[in-house]
Amino acid sequence: MSLPTLLLSSGAHELEAAQTLIQAGQFVVILLIARALAELMVRLGLPTILGELVAGVLIGVSGLHLIQTPELGGELNRLAQGLIANLAHVSSEQVRQIYDHTFPILQGMAKIGLLALLFLTGLESELDELMAVGGQAISVALTGVILPFVLGAFGLHVFFAVPMLPAFFAGAAMTATSIGITASVLGELKVLRTRERQIVIGAAVLDDILGIVILAVVVALAAGEGFTAGPVVRLVVAASVFVAVALALSRTAAPAFDALLDRLRAPGEVAVAAFLVLSLACFAEAALGAFAGGLILSSSKRREAIEKAIQPLVALFATVFFVLIGSSLNLAVLNPFNPANHAGLLMAGFLLAAALLSKLAAGWSYLSQEPTNRLAVGLAMIPRGEVGLIFLGLGSQSGVLGPSLEAAILLMVIGTTFLAPILLRLVLKGPVEAGEPVP
Amino acid sequence: MSLPTLLLSSGAHELEAAQTLIQAGQFVVILLIARALAELMVRLGLPTILGELVAGVLIGVSGLHLIQTPELGGELNRLAQGLIANLAHVSSEQVRQIYDHTFPILQGMAKIGLLALLFLTGLESELDELMAVGGQAISVALTGVILPFVLGAFGLHVFFAVPMLPAFFAGAAMTATSIGITASVLGELKVLRTRERQIVIGAAVLDDILGIVILAVVVALAAGEGFTAGPVVRLVVAASVFVAVALALSRTAAPAFDALLDRLRAPGEVAVAAFLVLSLACFAEAALGAFAGGLILSSSKRREAIEKAIQPLVALFATVFFVLIGSSLNLAVLNPFNPANHAGLLMAGFLLAAALLSKLAAGWSYLSQEPTNRLAVGLAMIPRGEVGLIFLGLGSQSGVLGPSLEAAILLMVIGTTFLAPILLRLVLKGPVEAGEPVP
Repeated sequence: MSLPTLLLSSGAHELEAAQTLIQAGQFVVILLIARALAELMVRLGLPTILGELVAGVLIGVSGLHLIQTPELGGELNRLAQGLIANLAHVSSEQVRQIYDHTFPILQGMAKIGLLALLFLTGLESELDELMAVGGQAISVALTGVILPFVLGAFGLHVFFAVPMLPAFFAGAAMTATSIGITASVLGELKVLRTRERQIVIGAAVLDDILGIVILAVVVALAAGEGFTAGPVVRLVVAASVFVAVALALSRTAAPAFDALLDRLRAPGEVAVAAFLVLSLACFAEAALGAFAGGLILSSSKRREAIEKAIQPLVALFATVFFVLIGSSLNLAVLNPFNPANHAGLLMAGFLLAAALLSKLAAGWSYLSQEPTNRLAVGLAMIPRGEVGLIFLGLGSQSGVLGPSLEAAILLMVIGTTFLAPILLRLVLKGPVEAGEPVP
Repeated sequence: MSLPTLLLSSGAHELEAAQTLIQAGQFVVILLIARALAELMVRLGLPTILGELVAGVLIGVSGLHLIQTPELGGELNRLAQGLIANLAHVSSEQVRQIYDHTFPILQGMAKIGLLALLFLTGLESELDELMAVGGQAISVALTGVILPFVLGAFGLHVFFAVPMLPAFFAGAAMTATSIGITASVLGELKVLRTRERQIVIGAAVLDDILGIVILAVVVALAAGEGFTAGPVVRLVVAASVFVAVALALSRTAAPAFDALLDRLRAPGEVAVAAFLVLSLACFAEAALGAFAGGLILSSSKRREAIEKAIQPLVALFATVFFVLIGSSLNLAVLNPFNPANHAGLLMAGFLLAAALLSKLAAGWSYLSQEPTNRLAVGLAMIPRGEVGLIFLGLGSQSGVLGPSLEAAILLMVIGTTFLAPILLRLVLKGPVEAGEPVP
């Protein structure tokens, strides 16, 4: 009988010490650099995830080699490796072995962060806002999903000879609208009237729902379900039914959840109950499940308490997720002085332009009797933010994207996330209050 | 270039699906059963960790084999294994391989839970309460540390021929007082006067500090530092200096931390900053560091916000920690009908009796001009709770404890945690308000 050996390496105290140093060190480096850059972004009036991505690039394979996915096989930072070896009295080679051995734990944290973020996105869906503007939001959302998808996927396939499956993935990544970024930019710019704000938020909510359905379909296709009409239709129906059930449940299951919570007395009950719903939903269907789990609880009267309990998990572990994405990007494929990269750069430029224009067009897709600021609505739909990155992460994980296409999608996500707040401020000529929190 | 493969198994979609099912399923089983039993304990007026431990026993090697540390090599639950295999379309053997492969991630969560719990214990240290009762609390704490340690360690060595090192570990595990359980039982029983309450809480804070120093020393000894006077003295001095520095820093570093937080604008800043302090402290010195990190921030004016941000991590991941401890206990060594177990059971009985009497004696160890309820003070010091379990977990991990001694320590921890609230209620004849939260 032995109690759980909490550390992988059993026996030698030095190896355990090295592992603790590595794990604590990884968290210190990730949080310190990511949050320092996030603070910088806030002060520039830009979304914080840009800072977290750049932090990943700085400490990853394109930078200091401090965070290094073992599968990539590159060198670790020699200084850090030597420091750990000295502090723990182990060899440099052992440090590398323990590092590779414990990296899955860091990836596990990132996965929890991703799922918690999707859960929070579902939780914060303002279904009532969506209902309030109904038709107009649906029109903007559908245009903002169909146009980028078709433009992206078929543009890549026709002009750049990208095979259908990766082209579909890229198109899917272009459908997202980051509610978080959109909402905070709109919150910052008080000049926009309630009507436009409602349309945009409603459409962004719907975009998330449509996007998550597309994501589930594309991931399943990438898993080898084949690419004929039959499976595609079946998957779309299955994912749609899943979301429809979640929406229906949010009216009936949330009150039951509240009634249960009212009876619980052991402390920490909100965090545990919410995480239990998240785990149950993920058991049913991973990423889609996490989002649906949040959606179901979005009409709970304890929503605010649930948000407060899940937010620390997101702050810590979603940061790890975004940093890991940045850390594994090899920026060498973006070097414009290498002629081999020109095709990839051209593709990135096309994707970015298509991503900007197609969402912008959504601003002119609805009917309205009173005049509305259509340019502002279109611009507000542009940022892909964390949702686009989740698509990129899952696409890359499935192995269907090549290095150039990955880099192109990343540039598209970064470009839209970076440009949307700036353009929106310019158009509305509102007071630029740098320093407002833009999550 | 490939983005982080968030799942260990790359490639086959089925293996990834199986892994997601296993991980989500583990969380569902752990949280559902642990919290159901915790709710039961609350209703019985008992501490919730008893429920979490029992849940671990129920689903671990002594029960359903749902949570199974790979090192123990036992069978997994066939029904669950078959269910996952069917749902993910993989073989039963593959389920087992993925299970063993991903278990370190669950152990990583447990480790974060342990460190977050130690951090929270340090954070909630009422240093002012300790100062207020000064001499009396110090006297109670010193008696309540020295007496159980000497009685436990030398009793085991002399009467049961246990070697010095494991005997020291068992003695160390007997020094702890669970602030959380003591405080909540006292809070529930309104009859106890302020004076006794202050003495008990002050002594429990000091017990934690002394206990964590002893723990660091014993863990280092177990790591093969030898067992001569020189290293012991050196380790005691080093650990004491570490805690003294943390105490000194809590007056100077906490205001600096507050000033930094005032300047941060990116959301989630409290959770991230607190976790950063935790990681930095763990980089300096694992378990002791986590506690010291909390101690340093205990005088922050943001203490409440930090607690709120860390509590969800504790609610989720410390539950995993306690369940894992319970899951790996083989209760067969406690079967009284097997004559081979009699020596172990006798040892458990001795440890429990020594643990009860030695802490009780601490109630008569202080001078007081006004009459105080010494029996109540002694009883309130008895519960070892989560702190005793942390000692057990680390001792077991170091490999110095045998199965009988592990079971004996566990029974001592459970026994004291179970009996203290009941005895205290009986003695004080206060209204037993079953249903008050007892964390």
